[in-house]
Amino acid sequence: MKLYRVLDGDSQVAYAAERDGELCRIEGDVFGAYTVTDRPVEMRKVLAPVDPPNIFAIGLNYRAHAAETHKPLPDAPVVFAKATTSLCHPGDPIVLPAAGPDCVDYEVELAVVIARRCRNVPADRAGEVILGYTVANDVSARDWQRRLGQWVRAKSFDTFCPLGPCIATDIDPADLPLRSVLNGKVMQDSRTSDLIFSVPELVAFLSADLTLEAGTVILTGTPAGVGLARRPQVFLRPGDTITCIVEGIGELTNPVIPAGQADRAEAEC
Amino acid sequence: MKLYRVLDGDSQVAYAAERDGELCRIEGDVFGAYTVTDRPVEMRKVLAPVDPPNIFAIGLNYRAHAAETHKPLPDAPVVFAKATTSLCHPGDPIVLPAAGPDCVDYEVELAVVIARRCRNVPADRAGEVILGYTVANDVSARDWQRRLGQWVRAKSFDTFCPLGPCIATDIDPADLPLRSVLNGKVMQDSRTSDLIFSVPELVAFLSADLTLEAGTVILTGTPAGVGLARRPQVFLRPGDTITCIVEGIGELTNPVIPAGQADRAEAEC
Repeated sequence: MKLYRVLDGDSQVAYAAERDGELCRIEGDVFGAYTVTDRPVEMRKVLAPVDPPNIFAIGLNYRAHAAETHKPLPDAPVVFAKATTSLCHPGDPIVLPAAGPDCVDYEVELAVVIARRCRNVPADRAGEVILGYTVANDVSARDWQRRLGQWVRAKSFDTFCPLGPCIATDIDPADLPLRSVLNGKVMQDSRTSDLIFSVPELVAFLSADLTLEAGTVILTGTPAGVGLARRPQVFLRPGDTITCIVEGIGELTNPVIPAGQADRAEAEC
Repeated sequence: MKLYRVLDGDSQVAYAAERDGELCRIEGDVFGAYTVTDRPVEMRKVLAPVDPPNIFAIGLNYRAHAAETHKPLPDAPVVFAKATTSLCHPGDPIVLPAAGPDCVDYEVELAVVIARRCRNVPADRAGEVILGYTVANDVSARDWQRRLGQWVRAKSFDTFCPLGPCIATDIDPADLPLRSVLNGKVMQDSRTSDLIFSVPELVAFLSADLTLEAGTVILTGTPAGVGLARRPQVFLRPGDTITCIVEGIGELTNPVIPAGQADRAEAEC
C-alpha cells in the first residue's frame, strides 16, 4: 500500500491510501491504528509524507560512492543528522542558499519511516518498527560540508530535505533500483543491494540505547554519481529540475531556484 | 528573570518564574505572549526548560579546548546536532549505554534558547530572537565519536543532553563563568569570554538560510578540562555525580547509572 499525506480540498492535512488508482481517505493514525475508508480525497497538494521528529542520515553507505569520494569503506554506519526544518515537499523548490549557492549537490536515497517508538531493535526484528519507505534527496552544500568537517550544517539549509511522494508499506528494501535524473539526464543509477549496511542493520545500529520516535526518518545513503565526484563537476543551478526515483515507491521531483533577494535583504525575525 | 518548566502539584507541565524566591505560575506561552501571575506553583519536579524541535551544538569553540584535543582553531563554527530524544531533565540519571559504557565524557556548555521562528538574523540583532540561556551537558561517548568521525550518533544516546535548570532571560552571555564538577572535584573552569565564536555570531551563522524554530536550543561549546584530554583520562562511572554550572543561570546535576539489564535483554518495541 502507498500512503500519501496531502492537503485535501479544504486545505486540511490528511492521509490517504492509493487503492485501484484512487486516493482514499484514511481515518485514524498511520502511526497507530487506522483504517482506509472508501471516501476519495481531493488532492490539492502532495506533502512530504511525514513531519519527522528527527532526521538521521547515513554517509558513504554505497561502495561505489565511497570510492568516488576517495574515502575508505566505513566499518560502522557514518551517522549524521539533518535539521527537521530542512524538510521540502514534493514539487516545492529547492532554494540555493544565498550563503552558499555554488556547490549544491543532489543525492537520491531510500528513506525509512519508523512506525512507533522503539529502542534496541535487533536487525532481525527491524521490520516490526518500520512503517514503510519513501524517497529522499539529501541535498548538500559541498563547500560548507568540506569547510566544517561535520556535515549537519551543510545538509540542513531550508529545503535541503525533499521527501516523498508517499510511504510504500509493502516493499522489500533489499534490492530496489534507485536513480536521480537532472534535467532529463540520469546522474545516479544503482540498487539498494549495493548498500554496505542494510536497512535492518541501520535500524539496529541507530536504535542501540537511542529511542526512535514514531515518524523518525532514516536516509540510508546515496549511490555513486553525485555532482561533486563528476568531471567536470555538476552542481544544481537555478532552473534545474531534479528527480529522485526509487522503484516501487515513486518519483520525487523538485525545481531549483535561487534565494530570493528578500532572503538576505533583511532578517526574517 | 528565571523561567522554570516543572511538573506541578497535579503532575501537569507548567512554566513558572522565580520572583522573590518563590515560583509563580506563568499564563500564556513563553515563546509568545505570557504573564507571570501571583499564584505560586507547587513544584513536583524540575524539567528540562524546553522540549526543543532541534538541538544544534558547536564543537571546538573554546581556544583551550581546541588545544587540548590537538585540533586547529576552526575558521567557522563546527556545527553538529544532538537527537531531540537525548534530552535529560535536571536530576535524572545519565545512563551509560550498554553499547558503549566505557568512554562517556561530560561537557559543560552555555545553551541558547531561541524565542521565535527566525532566519537570516544578523549578529547585531541576535538578542531579538533569544528567549534566554540555560545550562547543558553535552555528554559524549568518545569511542563512538572517534570511530564514526561524524559526531551526531556518539552524542545522541538517550539521556546524553541534560538541560536546565531554568532559562535566564536577563543575562549578558559575553563573560559568564562556567564549571563542571565531578563528585565534588572541579573538572572544567572557564568563562564564556573565551568562546571563539560568540553567541551573536553563532545565531547569525546557524540561521543563514536555515529557519530556527521557537524553542530551538544551541549548545555553544565546551571549555578545556574534558575527561578525554586528562592524563589519566577520566570517564563517567556508575555512581558518579556530575554538576554543570553557569553563573547567573544555575546548577544542573545528574547522577550516572549503568544501563539496566533489561535495556539489552530484549527489544523495547
